[in-house]
Amino acid sequence: MGFLRLVAPKALRAPSIFNGLPSGFPRNETVSIRAYSATMSPPSKAVVYEQHGSPDQVTRLINLPPVELKDNDVCVRMLAAPINPSDINRIEGVYPVRPPLPAIGGYEGVGEVHSLGSAVRGLSPGDWVIPSPPSFGTWQTYIVKEENAWHKISKDIPMEYAATVTVNPLTALRMLEDFTELKPGDCIVQNGATSMVGQCIIQLARIRGTHSINVIRDRAGSEEVKDRLKELGADEVYTESQLEMKNVKSLLGNLPEPALGFNCVGGNSASLVLKFLRQGGTMVTYGGMSKKPVTVSTSSFIFKDLSLRGFWLQKWMGSERAKDCRVMIDYLLDLVHKGKFKYEMELVPFDDFHVALDKALGKLGSHSKQVLRF
Amino acid sequence: MGFLRLVAPKALRAPSIFNGLPSGFPRNETVSIRAYSATMSPPSKAVVYEQHGSPDQVTRLINLPPVELKDNDVCVRMLAAPINPSDINRIEGVYPVRPPLPAIGGYEGVGEVHSLGSAVRGLSPGDWVIPSPPSFGTWQTYIVKEENAWHKISKDIPMEYAATVTVNPLTALRMLEDFTELKPGDCIVQNGATSMVGQCIIQLARIRGTHSINVIRDRAGSEEVKDRLKELGADEVYTESQLEMKNVKSLLGNLPEPALGFNCVGGNSASLVLKFLRQGGTMVTYGGMSKKPVTVSTSSFIFKDLSLRGFWLQKWMGSERAKDCRVMIDYLLDLVHKGKFKYEMELVPFDDFHVALDKALGKLGSHSKQVLRF
Repeated sequence: MGFLRLVAPKALRAPSIFNGLPSGFPRNETVSIRAYSATMSPPSKAVVYEQHGSPDQVTRLINLPPVELKDNDVCVRMLAAPINPSDINRIEGVYPVRPPLPAIGGYEGVGEVHSLGSAVRGLSPGDWVIPSPPSFGTWQTYIVKEENAWHKISKDIPMEYAATVTVNPLTALRMLEDFTELKPGDCIVQNGATSMVGQCIIQLARIRGTHSINVIRDRAGSEEVKDRLKELGADEVYTESQLEMKNVKSLLGNLPEPALGFNCVGGNSASLVLKFLRQGGTMVTYGGMSKKPVTVSTSSFIFKDLSLRGFWLQKWMGSERAKDCRVMIDYLLDLVHKGKFKYEMELVPFDDFHVALDKALGKLGSHSKQVLRF
Repeated sequence: MGFLRLVAPKALRAPSIFNGLPSGFPRNETVSIRAYSATMSPPSKAVVYEQHGSPDQVTRLINLPPVELKDNDVCVRMLAAPINPSDINRIEGVYPVRPPLPAIGGYEGVGEVHSLGSAVRGLSPGDWVIPSPPSFGTWQTYIVKEENAWHKISKDIPMEYAATVTVNPLTALRMLEDFTELKPGDCIVQNGATSMVGQCIIQLARIRGTHSINVIRDRAGSEEVKDRLKELGADEVYTESQLEMKNVKSLLGNLPEPALGFNCVGGNSASLVLKFLRQGGTMVTYGGMSKKPVTVSTSSFIFKDLSLRGFWLQKWMGSERAKDCRVMIDYLLDLVHKGKFKYEMELVPFDDFHVALDKALGKLGSHSKQVLRF
């Protein structure tokens, strides 16, 4: 085959990343060094963790050795990748599906094709590509995956949108489609409305003719936040304390009672979503930012006929959805291109990863979505 | 028309029951006294309440004057009617659908045809009939309703089963059908397993080849209770304290993880049902005996993909279900006739209503379903 394969003695290979490569990452388990003609990736600088724990304690930026490209492989130079709450939960070890250790952080992102295996026909150097469905290990400068793991996208949008489209916007899109048949003029209610999914829901609802009632937590500058969400298309925005009243439905005005609610907070904030729902309505839980459970009265189930469900994109994508994902990605990025879909992000140089991480962890006050730029 | 209609002066008619007849009860609003040939019902002894409140405080046994039978009316001498928890909630005023006051208690029962309007063709004196769909005001000795409000049943079963079939057994039957497609060999889990619905679920599940795991509250004599439920067909019966363990699923043995759960208790007991459910399972709440809400973790929704729903028979029946109800009643009473369907009841003479009520309210310890015998 024209190259030397150096295999580390078994005792040295695992689990330390220094004796091989992190798993949960599509490289060979052994270090392959191409001696002569085969194409190799450049070395990759990556955020690696060897054990679960507090992300700022267990993650390190290290350099990984080059990888050989097989015939169908594509080496991609990463351009941008976000820090999502689920990335943090995976590092903490509290997420039910996570890569084996040691592992590279990240789950979505965008890159530019750098080099190709000999059998690759559908991509060219310079193309922008997204790992789709998303997969582990996007927080690094170079990734090698088979051609069919990459989805080519148009370059006519800011890279930070391409980097972030497969997790939060897709969640918003699916949740609006999969639980209740919303007719034009119907209404949804959500908490955590300033989250990235929340911002996406407001805009995607508006595009489909659905009104939105939005609940945000009490904070300094809440009037400004309300204005920003209304600019995105929110019909109404209330702080939690504004809803501490007997009959929240008196606030509806001309809006219909919501048929569908979204909860990413839990605790009292989830109860506020339930209060707004109409008879027979559905609340979908997709996050639990307050770390408090959802509490529901017996009469809500029996007499109000509410349904409570959950949504998890990773499970949804597990069932042969690769093609659907790519159609949705193209739809969403086209909205971005047309200026109809936006959300707040902050691009951060990869070398400042630990600052971005602290912001994502909420240690430095309130910040918008952190997107690493490689 | 051959009779005199005596109309009480308006000021005297409402709301006191002594100046007219309770509403929520299918008689004329005015007192009609047939002077010559028209058929009249006998006077009816009834449990009446003029205001909402504690049932033992606000209910009285009183005699109501005779009512004229119109051409399509049937006068039924009631044989038996149960005291259900929902009857108590209606009297307390905490049930969302309840008759206007003053009202007669009760919502289901069985009676014998006593006399007929001139146009009635489908029923004969002596027939056993059930008000179907069930309706308000069964706690009295004579009821006059149009022919089509009555469903004729076979007399080959004990009257207490006919009296109780339309609320609790129908709830059990529908809940096994309407939420999850159960395949033979599947398993359900429920709390409140000694309740009448609970006993029905055990038996109806067994008839359809579905296993049941049953949770009961801790009590003296729980081993005896377990034996009785196992005789009905329960696969497993656990007290709540037996389930205070990390992994309740280790108790499953050869049973599959339950796809469907039923909750009529709330609080911790509902959480135990949730713990048993399999990935993607559904819990249906149909009661809240502990008066505590249902509390659910965020991860149960997102990662375990649980659905929480509610069931209310009265709403189900509201939507053109009269025919379906009668088919189900016949099915259930046939099971009773064949000895395949039974539950515990205590027949009580109507004159002892207030003793039966105290037992139903739990004031006199634990008692089986109280059924008034007229």
